[in-house]
Amino acid sequence: MLSKAKIKLIQSLEQKKKRREEHLFVAEGPKVVGDLMPIFTCRLIVATTTWLKKHSQIKAIETIEVTHEELCKASFLKTPQEVLAIFKLPHPTLPANIAEKELCLALDDIQDPGNLGTIIRIADWFGIKHLICSIGTVDAFNPKTVQASMGAVARVNVYYTNLQEYLANLRTENAQVPIYGTFLEGNNIYKEPLSTNGIIVMGNEGNGISLLTQQFITHRLFIPNYPEGSLTSESLNVAIATAITCSEFRRR
Amino acid sequence: MLSKAKIKLIQSLEQKKKRREEHLFVAEGPKVVGDLMPIFTCRLIVATTTWLKKHSQIKAIETIEVTHEELCKASFLKTPQEVLAIFKLPHPTLPANIAEKELCLALDDIQDPGNLGTIIRIADWFGIKHLICSIGTVDAFNPKTVQASMGAVARVNVYYTNLQEYLANLRTENAQVPIYGTFLEGNNIYKEPLSTNGIIVMGNEGNGISLLTQQFITHRLFIPNYPEGSLTSESLNVAIATAITCSEFRRR
Repeated sequence: MLSKAKIKLIQSLEQKKKRREEHLFVAEGPKVVGDLMPIFTCRLIVATTTWLKKHSQIKAIETIEVTHEELCKASFLKTPQEVLAIFKLPHPTLPANIAEKELCLALDDIQDPGNLGTIIRIADWFGIKHLICSIGTVDAFNPKTVQASMGAVARVNVYYTNLQEYLANLRTENAQVPIYGTFLEGNNIYKEPLSTNGIIVMGNEGNGISLLTQQFITHRLFIPNYPEGSLTSESLNVAIATAITCSEFRRR
Repeated sequence: MLSKAKIKLIQSLEQKKKRREEHLFVAEGPKVVGDLMPIFTCRLIVATTTWLKKHSQIKAIETIEVTHEELCKASFLKTPQEVLAIFKLPHPTLPANIAEKELCLALDDIQDPGNLGTIIRIADWFGIKHLICSIGTVDAFNPKTVQASMGAVARVNVYYTNLQEYLANLRTENAQVPIYGTFLEGNNIYKEPLSTNGIIVMGNEGNGISLLTQQFITHRLFIPNYPEGSLTSESLNVAIATAITCSEFRRR
C-alpha cells in the first residue's frame, strides 16, 4: 500500500531543488532500476508482486508492494513498468588531471533532459567515463534524463562545475591537453588527427558553444554534410553530433 | 480571429486518420514553416502580426492573424512560436530502381515520432533523399515528427510500403544491390567496405530488424562499443545508430 506521503515524496523529486534537499532521485523500469541497483544506494522500492518475486534478494531500506494502478499514481512514465526506485544522489569528485590520461566529454549548457540522457548513453557506449557539465546544464538526475540514459547514468560519472574556469585551469596547468569543440565551421572531423585523451566540448541546443567557452577550444571540428556544402538541414541535433564525434574518436 | 471550427480542425490533425481523410498536416514555427513553404501547398496560415508583417509576400489559400494567446489554443507546442500552418499532404511515388543509383534508408517499424523526425533530419544532412518506411512505421506527418525533423521533411521523400515485399522484389530484380542492416552482432562497420548505392535498413526501437525483414539483408553491420566487447550500454538509440551509420557511409 502506497501512502499519499510517499507519492508526494516521489513526485517532488521531479524538481532539482527537492532532489538536492533530499539527496535522492527516482529511476523506473526493470532495466534502469536493475542497472542502478549495484551502483547506488537504494532507499525505496515500489514494485508489483511479479517484480518482487523475481528479485527477492534485492537490497533496499524500504520495499512497498503495489498494484499496477498504485504504481501509475507515483510514476513519471506514460506506461509505468513494474518497478520504481528511489536512490541516494551520488556526489562524484572529478579526478585531477583526468583529461591528460583519458578522453572526456564536456557539455556547455545542454538544456533538454532527453538530450542529456542520450548523451550519457552514447558516452557509456564509447567508453567515456567522465562527463563534465557546465552549471547551466540540465541535471543528470532529472527523471527524464535517468530514463533516457537507459541506465547508463550508473556507469558514467557526471560532474557539474564552472566549465570555463575548469578549461582555463586545464590550459594553464597543461597546455598540451587538446580541447576539441564541434562547430558549423571548422576542420573536417574525418580528416583531422584525433587524440586518445583530452576533452570534447559539445554546445547548447540553440546557440552551440558559448563565446566564453570557445576561447579555450584548441581544435575546432566540423561534421561535413553530404555532398559537402549542399543545401541540407542547417545543423544536427546535439546528441546526434555527439554520437558522430565520439564514433570518429573511437574508430581510429 | 481564430474560430472554434479552425481550432478543432488543427487539433484533429494530430490523428493520422484525420490527416489521411483531409489530406492535410500541421507545421509550426518560423524555421519549419519557412522550410516547408516553397515545397508544399499551404492551405492555412495562423500567425501573429509580427510574423505576417515580415512575410507579406507569403502565399496561402487562407491567412488568419492572431494574438499569441489565440495561437496557444491551436498549437501542439509547449511554447508556440509566431506561426502555425496547414499544408497539403504530399504523395510521393518511389522512383523505380532508385537503390541501384543512390543510397537510401529503410525503416522497419520505427514507433517513436521524435526518433523518426530526427532520422529524417539525419538523412537530409547526409544527402539521403529517399526514406522507405514499413507500413508499421509511425507517420512522418505526425506533428511531433514534423517538428523534430526541423523542416527536413521538406527535403527528404518519405514513402510507406510493404517493406518485405519491396526488398524481396529488389533482390529478385537486381541481386547486386546491397541491403545493409545494423545488428548487435555483425561485421565491424568501421572495417567493412560500404557502397555508395543500396539500402540501409534500421530496425524497431525495442526489437531491432524483424526476422521477416532480416532474410533480405545482404550485409550485417555492427557499431562496436569501446573498448570493444566491454560492459557498456547494451545498445544505442535507433536515431543515434542511424547517424553513426550514415556518417560512416558518407565519410568514405
